[in-house]
Amino acid sequence: MINNFIHSKAIHHIHEECGVFGVYSQTAMDVASLAYYGLFALQHRGQESAGIVVNDDGLFRDCRGMGLVNEVFSQEKLQALGSGNMVVGHVRYATTGGSNMVNVQPLVINHHKGRMALAHNGNLTNSFALRSQLEEKGSIFHTTTDSEVIAYVIVQERLKCGSIEEAVYRAMERLEGAYCLVISSPAKLIAARDPHGFRPLCMGKTREGAICFTSETCALDAVGAEFVRDIAPGEVVTVDAQGIHSQQGHCGKAPKSLCVFEYIYFARPDSVVDGACVSLARQQAGRFLAMEHPVDADVVIGVPDSGLEAAIGYAAQSGIPYAIGFTKNKYIGRTFIAPSQGRGKTA
Amino acid sequence: MINNFIHSKAIHHIHEECGVFGVYSQTAMDVASLAYYGLFALQHRGQESAGIVVNDDGLFRDCRGMGLVNEVFSQEKLQALGSGNMVVGHVRYATTGGSNMVNVQPLVINHHKGRMALAHNGNLTNSFALRSQLEEKGSIFHTTTDSEVIAYVIVQERLKCGSIEEAVYRAMERLEGAYCLVISSPAKLIAARDPHGFRPLCMGKTREGAICFTSETCALDAVGAEFVRDIAPGEVVTVDAQGIHSQQGHCGKAPKSLCVFEYIYFARPDSVVDGACVSLARQQAGRFLAMEHPVDADVVIGVPDSGLEAAIGYAAQSGIPYAIGFTKNKYIGRTFIAPSQGRGKTA
Amino acid sequence: MINNFIHSKAIHHIHEECGVFGVYSQTAMDVASLAYYGLFALQHRGQESAGIVVNDDGLFRDCRGMGLVNEVFSQEKLQALGSGNMVVGHVRYATTGGSNMVNVQPLVINHHKGRMALAHNGNLTNSFALRSQLEEKGSIFHTTTDSEVIAYVIVQERLKCGSIEEAVYRAMERLEGAYCLVISSPAKLIAARDPHGFRPLCMGKTREGAICFTSETCALDAVGAEFVRDIAPGEVVTVDAQGIHSQQGHCGKAPKSLCVFEYIYFARPDSVVDGACVSLARQQAGRFLAMEHPVDADVVIGVPDSGLEAAIGYAAQSGIPYAIGFTKNKYIGRTFIAPSQGRGKTA
Amino acid sequence: MINNFIHSKAIHHIHEECGVFGVYSQTAMDVASLAYYGLFALQHRGQESAGIVVNDDGLFRDCRGMGLVNEVFSQEKLQALGSGNMVVGHVRYATTGGSNMVNVQPLVINHHKGRMALAHNGNLTNSFALRSQLEEKGSIFHTTTDSEVIAYVIVQERLKCGSIEEAVYRAMERLEGAYCLVISSPAKLIAARDPHGFRPLCMGKTREGAICFTSETCALDAVGAEFVRDIAPGEVVTVDAQGIHSQQGHCGKAPKSLCVFEYIYFARPDSVVDGACVSLARQQAGRFLAMEHPVDADVVIGVPDSGLEAAIGYAAQSGIPYAIGFTKNKYIGRTFIAPSQGRGKTA
Repeated sequence: MINNFIHSKAIHHIHEECGVFGVYSQTAMDVASLAYYGLFALQHRGQESAGIVVNDDGLFRDCRGMGLVNEVFSQEKLQALGSGNMVVGHVRYATTGGSNMVNVQPLVINHHKGRMALAHNGNLTNSFALRSQLEEKGSIFHTTTDSEVIAYVIVQERLKCGSIEEAVYRAMERLEGAYCLVISSPAKLIAARDPHGFRPLCMGKTREGAICFTSETCALDAVGAEFVRDIAPGEVVTVDAQGIHSQQGHCGKAPKSLCVFEYIYFARPDSVVDGACVSLARQQAGRFLAMEHPVDADVVIGVPDSGLEAAIGYAAQSGIPYAIGFTKNKYIGRTFIAPSQGRGKTA
Repeated sequence: MINNFIHSKAIHHIHEECGVFGVYSQTAMDVASLAYYGLFALQHRGQESAGIVVNDDGLFRDCRGMGLVNEVFSQEKLQALGSGNMVVGHVRYATTGGSNMVNVQPLVINHHKGRMALAHNGNLTNSFALRSQLEEKGSIFHTTTDSEVIAYVIVQERLKCGSIEEAVYRAMERLEGAYCLVISSPAKLIAARDPHGFRPLCMGKTREGAICFTSETCALDAVGAEFVRDIAPGEVVTVDAQGIHSQQGHCGKAPKSLCVFEYIYFARPDSVVDGACVSLARQQAGRFLAMEHPVDADVVIGVPDSGLEAAIGYAAQSGIPYAIGFTKNKYIGRTFIAPSQGRGKTA
Repeated sequence: MINNFIHSKAIHHIHEECGVFGVYSQTAMDVASLAYYGLFALQHRGQESAGIVVNDDGLFRDCRGMGLVNEVFSQEKLQALGSGNMVVGHVRYATTGGSNMVNVQPLVINHHKGRMALAHNGNLTNSFALRSQLEEKGSIFHTTTDSEVIAYVIVQERLKCGSIEEAVYRAMERLEGAYCLVISSPAKLIAARDPHGFRPLCMGKTREGAICFTSETCALDAVGAEFVRDIAPGEVVTVDAQGIHSQQGHCGKAPKSLCVFEYIYFARPDSVVDGACVSLARQQAGRFLAMEHPVDADVVIGVPDSGLEAAIGYAAQSGIPYAIGFTKNKYIGRTFIAPSQGRGKTA
Repeated sequence: MINNFIHSKAIHHIHEECGVFGVYSQTAMDVASLAYYGLFALQHRGQESAGIVVNDDGLFRDCRGMGLVNEVFSQEKLQALGSGNMVVGHVRYATTGGSNMVNVQPLVINHHKGRMALAHNGNLTNSFALRSQLEEKGSIFHTTTDSEVIAYVIVQERLKCGSIEEAVYRAMERLEGAYCLVISSPAKLIAARDPHGFRPLCMGKTREGAICFTSETCALDAVGAEFVRDIAPGEVVTVDAQGIHSQQGHCGKAPKSLCVFEYIYFARPDSVVDGACVSLARQQAGRFLAMEHPVDADVVIGVPDSGLEAAIGYAAQSGIPYAIGFTKNKYIGRTFIAPSQGRGKTA
């Protein structure tokens, strides 16, 4: 793995589109596999790297790596992660340039009050300012991610208050921008969503009663969990041996602003995001397009994959037949050797 | 690679659904890349193994292995294959049990009159009888494939006649069953299709004038070649420095019997097989189904991938809206760890 | 794996220095592991490729590949080979150019009377003539090795006589040059050594009574077998359910001519070859050198590894102190990146 | 990579036997290759993991991984590291349990005054106390290594003084135990050795004038550098655009205590450690043994590798002949499948 440590002041996280997943079970179970299937369902949100951290009664075991979920995890590695009562998982979007093994999440750090695994989807707007303040006090940074800044801010708050969830809540007052967090402390699993609700985050429950937090409902389906509710913008939800409790003080402080690209492009069509089915939202968008921009055509063709539903909606509204016009070669993956001037294709 | 040499008398090739590809160019060129892109387009016809043999003015270089095209070939390996004026490629269907490194095609053998690379799609019905006759004369077999039997029969005929294409033509009188062959001798590229025409085989031409033989037209599109014509059942087409010539004596000797599963399931929707577009054939099948079996329903949903076009046809004929009901997780490949009782999924 | 099929008439096997290993056990056992440890001990005789074929009551399972024994075999692959009552193993010397996956031994072929696994150390001097005769009769060759020629000759003889060992014995009358063979038929294990005895071959017995044939005694030590005796030049030894029997008709027909490089360079110092300990032979050579070429020097230094014993002998004879002058970096293997003009080393 | 984050309070680094290597060149060059060859020569000091960090005018590129030098680095990865004017490399001993990807050195961290790559051989005795003090102030730790504690202490001192070398010098007043450090800041390369001099550290110079710091002189030989001098216990040597300067204030504060196992076991025989040749030291030890414990014997045999020289010394002193009694199979590496009850070896 070759890493490029570019200067921290030049870091821009334009495409911080990731997927997070966490589980809290009252009894030890194979949480690593739950995370594996959850991350597989969230794979469309990040193909650069993947990681799972199992919390086995305060002992943290992690497996993280560059690549797709099926490249990072093997049967053997999942078994080595063992059982536990908590897990945190993360898939990360392929950004150009800053791809970096040390940046692979979840982040696992040790601090005065114990240990913490943190998975983060989003990007801060005041990351540089926070980082500079910390460095001026002697802090050292291993990564170039916002997530390490968030971890530092939480740890600082933790020194001043009585619980990790209170520390997360206080930290949210200092963090600006988009963030959905799933955090495991030795004894608690915490989910937090920024006051704007830029990125989706929801809660589910497996048949055995384990609580899941994840970016999209399709990950709940993948592990056989039922959707319970969305995490509200500004909310902190904590699960521990005593049960679930929520702190909502930040709610309503900011206008709700779910990123529209979640419906148009990012989310999987079978997910329900903040109460709306992504597939139906895309069909509806196609119907609106047909009403606003009617055309005279023989067929309506969608560009796979996110454009297919919109095409179906356009076809239904306009009465023009729907057809399949593009056949994707499903075998073309990251190892495909693209044709160049000198090879293969004519011309 | 672990091979199981099962007793030859117990061999059954039920699922001999493969893809073949060959190119003849008057001048040396990067034929390995043409084969690579051609095989990628034919990957749906065989995921068990893949192979490419480059004929560089009589010097044969091959690269063969178990797995998908992108697993068997790398940039480095394609470069090592080098340029040439002929290439033969093959992808093989995943059969249970008989998966075997030594069976990976194209077969490359040395004989009295030179060398031969042979790619075969189909399965013989008299393979066992032919093999027994050969063994009784002292022949030895390295593989358990029909292809090695075909090679032996051709080599035997070659000793008795003046050209390799004549030997192929004579061998066809002794072979029974389904076979499409693409064969490279030191100086010629030969395509042959059994008299029934069970499996598809067609000819195309690249912009530079190189001649291609392949199982489906989608492979011609992949290398920028134009479709010229289908190879007729019973026909032998030969390309060499003198040009293209055909021998059609076996034509019409048997009823034409293209396997109907080519249209229903095997072929890619964007291929044209024996004159009919596969996509339209599937839509038409859906229309017929709607006429023969009308139902009262809210939506018509197709099972991906081969059922989508039939569903569109059914929807169009019946007036019931078409919808997408299944989202395939495109990241689930052969390394996916399936959930078991003891792991992951609840219940 | 990229193979180069060079023209058969241009094949020269200068460095056919290989290691062979075979076991016959009256009861099924983990013969694959015996072969694994035996080949590890013979690794110095061939680093290009390795192969093991298990004969499990007539069912042959093989695992062969390019590279060192530890690269070709894993715990998983050895387990997949399963138990059996016979095994044949081979390691092959790194020859330049003709390195070729299809040439990896043991060779496994099917013929009229069954199946045969063959491991060969040596090289024929009449290989080309035999091959031409076979090709003229319609035989096809997959490899460019002498071993395939030997297999054909044995199979031809087998059609004319009543047993495989008789066929091997008759074949030896047609084969010229150096060869040590270990062959497994469905029910027998056969060892044969050319009448000159160019290459070493010996027999041992494990504590459980399994019979081993191998190139050097160090492989017997590695599997806990006791040395029984050397195979005589021209001898054919067969083991089957009835026991061990030997045919020695070829013995004494040719002058015994063990290759002197076995003592000087090829064999391991702890092996005993044709009755002489290699280590002592090297020390003795050093003593002779000291007598024939006395020098005035401060220390005697040997070049590792084969020169160390000779240096000790020279030192002992001459009275000049022995010293270690070269430290080999034992971590430098085939993946070591050699320094070039443009990289690393100064000058 | 599966990591076990064991509780920090239970960490014991008994076997912190590592190798460090660093280069400062006034002009950009292929320093990655220098580090590669240097680490290859130091491989005997650590087989668990390896890492190289290139400093290309303030831009740090690193490649680190678990395994041997030849497993971690490929031609491709060395090229990706590119040229630079500084490099820091590290090989780490295989410790049980705490093997951990995040612990792989050199450590690369970002702090207020820039960036720092740090390679460390040794172990602190006050690591836990320093770590606790830091955590109480809000510091977070990614690793369980002493090296991260050292980095924090240096960064804290850096905030209070004018240069990185001064910060290293001040940090040494707070660090207790064994440590040899090679540190690259954006513009300087610094070597420091603890006041006791527990572990070796020396300086060399390549023909082009590049300055090297490394654990053993054999790494200087490997890169064609000449030995200049040992770093004195308690000394800090800094190289930058202005040249070499040294700070020796800590020298003589503690009794010099080079670990005797360096001569007996750790160091390579061809290294010169603190002025004494390791090979001669071992021979001398053998001579002393022969004087103190004379025996009546036929031969003197050394146990490879570190016992060979002692045996030669014993033989020379006693007059008993030296012989080679053990042949190591040099192909047995970490992938060797050890025989168990159920497999292979008899008994």
